[in-house]
Amino acid sequence: MYKNFSFNILQQSKNLKTNERLGKIVTPHGEIQTPAFIFCGTKASVKGISPYQLKETNTQIILSNTYHLFSYPGSAYIKARGGLHKFSGWNGPMFTDSGGFQIFSLGHGSVADEIKGRRSGISTLAKIDEEGATFKSYWDGSVQLLTPEKSIEVQHELGADLIVSFDECTPYHIDKKYTEKSMERSHRWEKRSLNEFIKRNNGTQALYGIVQGGIYPDFRKRSAEFVSSHPFFATAIGGTLGSTKEQMYEVVEMAMNGLDIRRPIHLLGIGGISDIFRGVKLGIDTFDCVHPTRIARHGGALVKAAYRDHNLREHINLKKAEYRNDDNPIEIDCDCPTCAIFSRAYLHYLLKAKELLALQAIAIHNIRFMNKLMEEIRRGIADGNLTEVESKWC
Amino acid sequence: MYKNFSFNILQQSKNLKTNERLGKIVTPHGEIQTPAFIFCGTKASVKGISPYQLKETNTQIILSNTYHLFSYPGSAYIKARGGLHKFSGWNGPMFTDSGGFQIFSLGHGSVADEIKGRRSGISTLAKIDEEGATFKSYWDGSVQLLTPEKSIEVQHELGADLIVSFDECTPYHIDKKYTEKSMERSHRWEKRSLNEFIKRNNGTQALYGIVQGGIYPDFRKRSAEFVSSHPFFATAIGGTLGSTKEQMYEVVEMAMNGLDIRRPIHLLGIGGISDIFRGVKLGIDTFDCVHPTRIARHGGALVKAAYRDHNLREHINLKKAEYRNDDNPIEIDCDCPTCAIFSRAYLHYLLKAKELLALQAIAIHNIRFMNKLMEEIRRGIADGNLTEVESKWC
Repeated sequence: MYKNFSFNILQQSKNLKTNERLGKIVTPHGEIQTPAFIFCGTKASVKGISPYQLKETNTQIILSNTYHLFSYPGSAYIKARGGLHKFSGWNGPMFTDSGGFQIFSLGHGSVADEIKGRRSGISTLAKIDEEGATFKSYWDGSVQLLTPEKSIEVQHELGADLIVSFDECTPYHIDKKYTEKSMERSHRWEKRSLNEFIKRNNGTQALYGIVQGGIYPDFRKRSAEFVSSHPFFATAIGGTLGSTKEQMYEVVEMAMNGLDIRRPIHLLGIGGISDIFRGVKLGIDTFDCVHPTRIARHGGALVKAAYRDHNLREHINLKKAEYRNDDNPIEIDCDCPTCAIFSRAYLHYLLKAKELLALQAIAIHNIRFMNKLMEEIRRGIADGNLTEVESKWC
Repeated sequence: MYKNFSFNILQQSKNLKTNERLGKIVTPHGEIQTPAFIFCGTKASVKGISPYQLKETNTQIILSNTYHLFSYPGSAYIKARGGLHKFSGWNGPMFTDSGGFQIFSLGHGSVADEIKGRRSGISTLAKIDEEGATFKSYWDGSVQLLTPEKSIEVQHELGADLIVSFDECTPYHIDKKYTEKSMERSHRWEKRSLNEFIKRNNGTQALYGIVQGGIYPDFRKRSAEFVSSHPFFATAIGGTLGSTKEQMYEVVEMAMNGLDIRRPIHLLGIGGISDIFRGVKLGIDTFDCVHPTRIARHGGALVKAAYRDHNLREHINLKKAEYRNDDNPIEIDCDCPTCAIFSRAYLHYLLKAKELLALQAIAIHNIRFMNKLMEEIRRGIADGNLTEVESKWC
């Protein structure tokens, strides 16, 4: 079923207490060395950054959001343009999500923040039933129905290499009873997604199953076993990961329990540096998050431990007055094009003067930062010194 | 006085009726092959475009506006950061204007449009007298006085290679009497600029004189003779160029009359394709204009004659519905990074979806377009077939 795809585990952890691993996902558009970070190109474009710049900073894979592209310009349109790769000019591996996350997180209102970050777009969830989810499009207000079959059809038309089953994404505040009911329905939706995928499969795509089950160990285990017992290419861990960092790691650990670890494992929506180290040690292969590119648009530049102010956040805010006369690059040991020629003072000035270049320059640093982080994590796994790598980055 | 600078005329027109020429301006930051186009990086940044992207598209020289940088962040600040080159990361030749144009065009109100395009920033001219021009800063409303000495001091602190004498820039609707009075004062200001330049000269900069005189042949000639009889490195043609295209060429021709043609000649604020051909044939060496990068931010992509819709404008507006399904690049024979991977349809979509990448992608095309235009003009002069080159581009 996945003849043009493969996942090879190149090396397992040398440490008995942790499960980090080196791997390689092969897709028709190239290989992904794992652990890897997937950058968000929500609307078929990583905001303000060209595919050339993504390549120059060693980006392996980007994702687009089905929800946004379904709303505008539509998947039939993108198919007519030759699919996402040709349309967007990115010829490397691509990933699309199922479209469910945006609908449900918007539908559940402000609790979207509890799951994984702020809202994008403004939409309204009208109804969830066995068939699927009815919502009002953020783009034009039209009423749309997204079903498992429709999600797979749309993702098939978009044409990313790695695509995801349709599920309901529940937030933290949902009770145990609803969580179970929703999880069971998600499993039925995932089976329908798989059936639709098989019907349409032409060898260009591979399908992820999603583990749901909220913060409940028994549900997470049941969901992991469901996904592992069906012929998905890979697994994504979705749904709420709890309300605290510690709970997040517990939930991920629960979800790993019962998973087929011969498949690639993706952790949806997580992109903090320390979170990535924790995830990698639990056996996660890929991560995605809007964080690195989103904070760039607000002046946030990711920095390693040595460069943090007050050592609290994983980034510095270049809008702050303290950078006004700072002639250093964001990071003196960074090999990105931004750190090669721009000072913090210049970036601070560009932000104050509302010059567009600031957004591009900081985003490029953050993208290179994340790719370099993943490169060093992979080297740390190979060399058996991941903890030393972590102490440099966290 | 200009020991680190030189201008070599490499070839004169082979055609008796026209005065185009090939040249080379040498500056401490590199050479400029002329005829050349100077791109606007108003606030020490070409909007949304990095110095790498400027180099990749064969950009030779950029300019920054003294008025904007004087208002914010201030030239003393930029000097403390190591000057404009170091601060902005652009290590090639740079040009600054005197700051006068913005003050006077804003001061003369809506007639700014008559001179050379729309306003940038919002300021108020309070007073012009022999000393200089008093105005309210667009940045913080503070009252500032710009004099010839101050303009040179500011430009010295900014540190561009090529700098310009302070003059009054008069619009088209000003009468002959005021034009003469203003021109004579401009000449006195230019002498003061030159004196201040000589006092501060440390070999890193070269000074332009400016020809004024409005639309009056006798004044233009007098002004050209004034400039040519003083030890400026080069000459810029400023002030109003009339109210029609035809008048513009007449005024430029008048200004050329009496000029020392051994010096480089710059035509301020002109960047249309056919205007550049006309200017080149009159003997102009360099041009500058915000047009190529400004229209990009509104979806305007420069195109050669063969690609124009209805053959009226020198650009196409990619926001138009007719490009929605157009899978061609902006220009099929363009060697820019944008035309290599993006279709008109994708750029149209990015504009509609308000994705930042559109601005960068179209600006890169327009920058490469202008540089390629100037490359072909130079080849056309070398080969003696400028008219053939023109028929392809206009």
